[in-house]
Amino acid sequence: MPPSRLHTRVCDVLGIDVPIFVAPMGPSVTSPELAAAVSNAGGLGIVSFGANPPDLLRDLIRRLRALTTRPFGVNMILHFPVDDHVNVCIEEKVPVISFFWGDASRFVGPAHAAGLKVIDQVGSVEAAKRSAQAGVDVVIAQGVEAGGHIAGQVSTMALVPRVVDAIAPTPVVAAGGIVDARGLVAALALGAEGAAMGTRFLATPEANAHAAYKQRVLESTEEDTVRTTLFGYGWPNAPHRTLRTKFVDEWLSQEARGSQERRDEPVVGETTLGGHRQEVRRFMGFPPGADTTGDIESMSLLAGQGVGLVNEIKPAAEIVRDLVESASRIIQQLAR
Amino acid sequence: MPPSRLHTRVCDVLGIDVPIFVAPMGPSVTSPELAAAVSNAGGLGIVSFGANPPDLLRDLIRRLRALTTRPFGVNMILHFPVDDHVNVCIEEKVPVISFFWGDASRFVGPAHAAGLKVIDQVGSVEAAKRSAQAGVDVVIAQGVEAGGHIAGQVSTMALVPRVVDAIAPTPVVAAGGIVDARGLVAALALGAEGAAMGTRFLATPEANAHAAYKQRVLESTEEDTVRTTLFGYGWPNAPHRTLRTKFVDEWLSQEARGSQERRDEPVVGETTLGGHRQEVRRFMGFPPGADTTGDIESMSLLAGQGVGLVNEIKPAAEIVRDLVESASRIIQQLAR
Repeated sequence: MPPSRLHTRVCDVLGIDVPIFVAPMGPSVTSPELAAAVSNAGGLGIVSFGANPPDLLRDLIRRLRALTTRPFGVNMILHFPVDDHVNVCIEEKVPVISFFWGDASRFVGPAHAAGLKVIDQVGSVEAAKRSAQAGVDVVIAQGVEAGGHIAGQVSTMALVPRVVDAIAPTPVVAAGGIVDARGLVAALALGAEGAAMGTRFLATPEANAHAAYKQRVLESTEEDTVRTTLFGYGWPNAPHRTLRTKFVDEWLSQEARGSQERRDEPVVGETTLGGHRQEVRRFMGFPPGADTTGDIESMSLLAGQGVGLVNEIKPAAEIVRDLVESASRIIQQLAR
Repeated sequence: MPPSRLHTRVCDVLGIDVPIFVAPMGPSVTSPELAAAVSNAGGLGIVSFGANPPDLLRDLIRRLRALTTRPFGVNMILHFPVDDHVNVCIEEKVPVISFFWGDASRFVGPAHAAGLKVIDQVGSVEAAKRSAQAGVDVVIAQGVEAGGHIAGQVSTMALVPRVVDAIAPTPVVAAGGIVDARGLVAALALGAEGAAMGTRFLATPEANAHAAYKQRVLESTEEDTVRTTLFGYGWPNAPHRTLRTKFVDEWLSQEARGSQERRDEPVVGETTLGGHRQEVRRFMGFPPGADTTGDIESMSLLAGQGVGLVNEIKPAAEIVRDLVESASRIIQQLAR
């Protein structure tokens, strides 16, 4: 890929061509295939640690490595015990390790010592300062319009410039509500040096999301999401943004129930997790994968407010290519 | 002012140099002096109809006209009966009439017939379509991070491109979370052809906001606002974004009380409204003006999430000039 107008310090730091990340959706919605497609297109694919046992994470990394020679990332959710997973990433020398939902400080030194680059996603200026202080290489500032779990309360437009100012010269990547080249250029205008996108990449052939979930994403508008803690079984009281399905509407008035982890919650389906089939209980926060069975519509169909702009399933590489081309055109138009 | 890189169709339609609007804050926070300063600097000053009797609105328009020969606007809140006010605007041939909080369709024909340009502010794609259908000249798409009354639930980043696509070729102006040149260029990148800004212009010498209110704006961060219906006395059950003061925190659990319009709510101060001094009762939604007296901290200190980026009081003309210069520099940097 020729040097792009979108080239930023984030590209230099991570060794990528264009500062476009696919977010590590769900335990496995961002499949190795999706992450590899984005990395191969010049961006950064990031898979989740996947709530997998550490050895399965090692397999996942090796599968991903077989699909791309470009930099990629592995994300840790700090609500869960991930020390062993971090060690696997260090042993496997993954190019990039990323963190979300807590204080990543203690992992930065060991990761850097092993040659890994470190990303941390935050939802507030305060958390961004902690990350920068810890020496994180790139901070993702996540606005409240983002899909999936949401760390803060502030919109991308209001949050990103504040984070940029607060932690300069640490480079910042914007997340939340960004789905096309307009959002990408807006993020750059706000002072970010890249964009992390989930919902847009969910509607790809490569994403490991259930077909019915992808279909709902295509059909939904920006009015159809809600920030809730409803899908709190397994990760209680953690705000996330999900499509406002009939199931969600039905239970929203009893939102707290979702975090009670009652063993009598009915089983609503089955999914592959940690390498084997597992029951999905009502209110569990797993967005349904391609091979999930059961009542898909009652599961957590995580999506951001940008969902209104997602109207077709497109290969991830094409999305990246279109983003780069259209962003370049938008910048030219602004500068005309 | 020389032709600017920021020149858009909104400038052509409204006869202004730069597509920067000051929002019509409160009944009187956007004073004639503030509106005139923005208009004289090449933008568009918009005053509120001010909850004034129609004859006082006529006086206000004449005062504003004495301060500027440039286009300006007068805003109507459609929760209130404004037919007589619209007629005053038509009789006075104000350059621009703007609407918020309802269906403005029936006013568009008469306004156009009299040579007025028409702006409508909306918070959803559906409302934007209604406006465009009615022939409105410019639609303001307001994101949920905006201060003051908020029509929708969607962030600026996610809403603006959707509105742009839905009502093309009607020009769109973005509102919500925009306080500096980064936000302005981001708005343009999203496809908007201008930005409407409230909170930034509140921190000006010209704004008719109480000194303690301005001070709170300077001190607050993007975390310090809340979307609520608390200040609902006089305009019940209407979501607005306000600073999260001690008073707000104290009453937020009894939010519904604010819309009950109980006559036994204590008087917390006094303000000038409709040309004479009036009592301010608890939960009334008037942001305190320069001459408001009483318990200022218990009144509605409306502000958007962009408040975190507002750190100094600056003359409005200087804000406009800085926006234009910095936006031009940002665009150059993007296109480097």
